[in-house]
Formats: sequence, C-alpha cells, structure tokens
Amino acid sequence: MKPVFRRIAIIGQGLIGSSITRAIYSRDISSQVVITDQSPAVRKRLLELGLGHAKVVHSSAEAVDGADLVIGCVPVASYSDLVAEIAPHLKQGAVLSDVGSVKASVVERSLTLIPEGVDFVPAHPLAGTEFSGPDAGKAKLFMDKWCILTPVPSASSDAVEKVSRFWQSLGSRVEVMTPEKHDHALAITSHLPHLSAFSIFHTALHREEIDQSPVMQFSAGAFRDFTRIAASNPQMWRDIFLLNKEPLLDALEQFVSDMEKLSDAIKADDGDALVEFISKSRVTRKSNIEDEDKAKIKKMMNSNARNEIIKPYSSD
Amino acid sequence: MKPVFRRIAIIGQGLIGSSITRAIYSRDISSQVVITDQSPAVRKRLLELGLGHAKVVHSSAEAVDGADLVIGCVPVASYSDLVAEIAPHLKQGAVLSDVGSVKASVVERSLTLIPEGVDFVPAHPLAGTEFSGPDAGKAKLFMDKWCILTPVPSASSDAVEKVSRFWQSLGSRVEVMTPEKHDHALAITSHLPHLSAFSIFHTALHREEIDQSPVMQFSAGAFRDFTRIAASNPQMWRDIFLLNKEPLLDALEQFVSDMEKLSDAIKADDGDALVEFISKSRVTRKSNIEDEDKAKIKKMMNSNARNEIIKPYSSD
Repeated sequence: MKPVFRRIAIIGQGLIGSSITRAIYSRDISSQVVITDQSPAVRKRLLELGLGHAKVVHSSAEAVDGADLVIGCVPVASYSDLVAEIAPHLKQGAVLSDVGSVKASVVERSLTLIPEGVDFVPAHPLAGTEFSGPDAGKAKLFMDKWCILTPVPSASSDAVEKVSRFWQSLGSRVEVMTPEKHDHALAITSHLPHLSAFSIFHTALHREEIDQSPVMQFSAGAFRDFTRIAASNPQMWRDIFLLNKEPLLDALEQFVSDMEKLSDAIKADDGDALVEFISKSRVTRKSNIEDEDKAKIKKMMNSNARNEIIKPYSSD
Repeated sequence: MKPVFRRIAIIGQGLIGSSITRAIYSRDISSQVVITDQSPAVRKRLLELGLGHAKVVHSSAEAVDGADLVIGCVPVASYSDLVAEIAPHLKQGAVLSDVGSVKASVVERSLTLIPEGVDFVPAHPLAGTEFSGPDAGKAKLFMDKWCILTPVPSASSDAVEKVSRFWQSLGSRVEVMTPEKHDHALAITSHLPHLSAFSIFHTALHREEIDQSPVMQFSAGAFRDFTRIAASNPQMWRDIFLLNKEPLLDALEQFVSDMEKLSDAIKADDGDALVEFISKSRVTRKSNIEDEDKAKIKKMMNSNARNEIIKPYSSD
C-alpha cells in the first residue's frame, strides 16, 4: 500500500513524539522518519534507544527538510516558536500538524507564520500516561484512542483526509471539529477534572496534617488512577490552563456554582435535590454510553456467569 | 486450619454481600454460611445462582440464629433498622459487623440497640464496581483492597483481631481507626471526588446542549473510568452524603475555596501560583506513593525496555 505520507518529521521526542515514532515503525507506516529534540541529552538517548528506522538529526530545520508531514510534539506554549523556526524550511505541499492539548490560541499564534502552500491541520491525540520523556513512549499509545483534528479553514480537504488516515493507521479514532469546540470539550473532559484532582489533593494534604496519618492511600476504584493524575507535570498544566483560559473559566464557573448548590443541599438535608442532581448525571451517562463500554459490561456479566456462579449446595 | 468464625450470617446480597459469600466459598473460609435478602426476588435469584454452600433463609432473624459473625450488607441508611430487628436474635459472643461507607453516624444510631455480650466491629471494604445486585458480585472483589475497621470502644480486642483475620482471609489489607478518622478520610478520597464527578457531568451536559454535540466521549485516561462513576446509584450517594454531613462539608469548603483560588490565578495569568499549587500535589503524591505503584512503574519501564526499544536502523 502506498504510504499516506512519504517522509515524516517528528520534532520533540517526549512521551507523545517518541510514541508516534515507535508506532510508525511497528506498523510499517513510513520508511522515512526524521526525528529531533531540542535537548542534546534526549538526542543522545534517542540514538541509544534506536527508535526503529528513524534518523536522528540535530535541528528542527534539518528535520523538516523535504518532509511531507511535520508534527511538532513540543509543549503547547512553545509551538508557535517552533513554527517561526521551521517556517522557512517547510517544503511546498507539506502538511504541518501538532499534538497539543489546546487549539484556538495556539492556532491563532501560529497561523500567520505559516507560508502559503503549507496546509495546517492541528491534531490532538487524547492519549497519555503520567510518565514523560523518550523512554516512556509506547507504540500502542494511540490504539483505540480519539484523535481530534482542528484544521484551519485554509487547509485543503485532501490534507485533512491524509492526516486523518495517518492517525487511523496508528490505531486512533478520528474526529474533526473547530478549535473552539475542541477547547470547550477538553476544558470539561480534561482540564477541569485535572484542576479538581489537584484541589482534592490539597484537601487531602490538609487532612493528613490534622490527623497526622495518611489519607490518600484509601482512594479506591477509579480514584486510584485519579491520584496518579496529581503526579503530572506542573509546567505543562500551567500552560494548558492559561492557554485555554476562557473555555476553562466558563467550565469552572458552572462547576463551582454546582458544587455550592450541592453543599447547600447537604447542609439543608435536602435529599431530593441531591437525588435529582445525581440522577441527571446518570441519565447523561447512560445516553452517552459507548459501544466499548457496553462490550465491557457484557464481558463482565459473562465472566461473572462463567466463573462465579457455583452449583447449589443441595445438588452437590 | 481452624476457621476464624464457625458460622457466618450475611444479610443483604447485593454486590458486596454476594461478593463476600462468593469469596468465603472460593477460599474455603467457612462451611456454614447463611444468607438472606429482604427482597423476595433477590432470594429467588440467590437460589438460582446457588452461591456455593450458602444456605438461603427468609428472614434476618433466622439468618443470625447461632451465627458467630453477622455482617449486615444493607444500605447505610437502613443499618440501624436492621440492628433493631436482629438484636433479640443475636447469640451471646457473636460479633456484629457491616460494610457501610459511613461510620460515626451509623455507629451512634446502632450502638444502643446492641445487646451486651455482642461485640460491634464495623468494617468498610474499599471495593466496588458500578454494578449492583447479586449477579454483579465477584469472589475476588476484595483482593488487595483496603478494609477499614472502626471497632467501638467496648469491642473486645479478640473480636477486632478475628474480624481483621476474616478480611485478610478474603485477600484484603486491614487498617483499624476511629469512625471519625474513617469518615474524614473517606469524605476526601471518595465522597468529595464523587460529588466533583457528578458536577463535571452537569457541566458537560450543559456544554452538549450549547454545542449540540457529544462532549463526554472525549474523556481520556483516568477520566474514562471517572465517567463510569456518574452512573452510580443516586439513592446510595444521597444517603452517604447526608450521613457523612460534617466531614464532607469540611472537605467541600476547602475544595471550593481552592477551586476559586485557582480560578483567580487563571484569570490573573498567574502562572507561578498555578505551578506552586500543582507542585504541592505532586510532592504529596510522590511521598505517598505506594509499593504497588512503584512495582507498576517498574513493570512499565521493563515492558518499555523489552517491547519498544528497537535496534538502530544502522545496525540492522
């Protein structure tokens, strides 16, 4: 099969960048991958890791030379600086993309820097772990995960189609939307939950000081993973929160107002108000439930039926 | 080995109760298990499921007759009613326990109802799924999970020791603390995160109405599971929130104040304040990191090293 993109440059080889490099190799997507990272220590490590057939070069300008697809996997706050640096070296007909968690403000800063004849198709793979750096990358990181594309109006539909096929070839499900819609959706599904997790940690820390005994170790279920979130990179989150300011403040305002309403209901012993509030979430969840969850539930039920139902004592 | 408790009664056969029944059978912990449920439909289903050697009876009074350990696995708000019902039928020397998510208020309501000669050792296994009912139970539900015991001052140390050994025999790690300490810890690690998850759902619902397109499907990572939380039983959470009122309001007050501080920092583009706040969570998390997490991280690193580091192209 003809590759979607012949030559691919991936700039920045942290968790996401090095995972793309590994995925391209393990799925045989392109035989011409050029990678780089601004850190000399990371570039040295890339050579030691030997990421497939990728060629490690010393500068971003060198990496993008002749590339059909250029993916900047750098911190969101540095992306427009990267674009300014590589713009003169992009080939005509190249597609430029990224992997950032915030779109509208980053697109706005970068757009005027991009030369004519280059299609700008920003992307956000919704995948990650709490680890970082080139050693943390995984070839399967994007498998069955969403990748949201937010092409600028001037991007050709051919370029959007090709970036979409590229991410599908890494195993992702692709959705195309405006940068604004992306930013509002992510403010709610990722940025607000992270803010909330950081605050719950503070509350726990405060309690640990009062009780002089551990609290967070008793997190159970989904919140076991939730606690891992608080180990995230503070600078990365600072940048995301500040770059996605308006959508996040919108979400925060409603969230804090809801939490105050819940607090009032608890103070007033208003059980009906609590049930109504929680039930609304429940309905939302049920109506949005995805096929993968249905499959998981079905599997769980079957596994229960198979392993756990034991013959009655009387018939033994 | 001599069983810790000869005869065990488990009243209420939902997710937790039926999981205890299954775990006792699969681990050969007692050959005399008597179970019941107030719902005739559940009792019928128990007979169909044939949960090991358990004997299904029609009333709680009948279930506790001659039992050495009685575990009430009923909704927290109904526990004291159950105690009132079974008190006259408890055998001298029996140990009475529960599995509820709230302790202080439930212990207070129940304590005066318990006859002399019966030791009261409340327990809270930190385990669960989003499913409920006798079909959802799993023999391994408590494996490697915490079980917190909150014995009343009058309980004998022998009774505490035996309940502790019982839960360890189901695979749990046991911690003993006061009901108050339990309630504050759970307010932060479970009740507040659930309130927060319900509110995030409301914010998402509101956004879906504005955008006329789905939002929650883009939850990634830990928040994929987080979204399952919102499918929880509203009546159960109402009861937990109201029964654990003071500790929860304490935690909520600090949480909302922190969220407002974060909101102000974002409004003022105060990146340093954000980094300081997030870093504090990070430090807390790192210092509390548990052995199981360390093991997981080590395993992940090894797996990366094994599967993902590929020989350099040049040496192929």
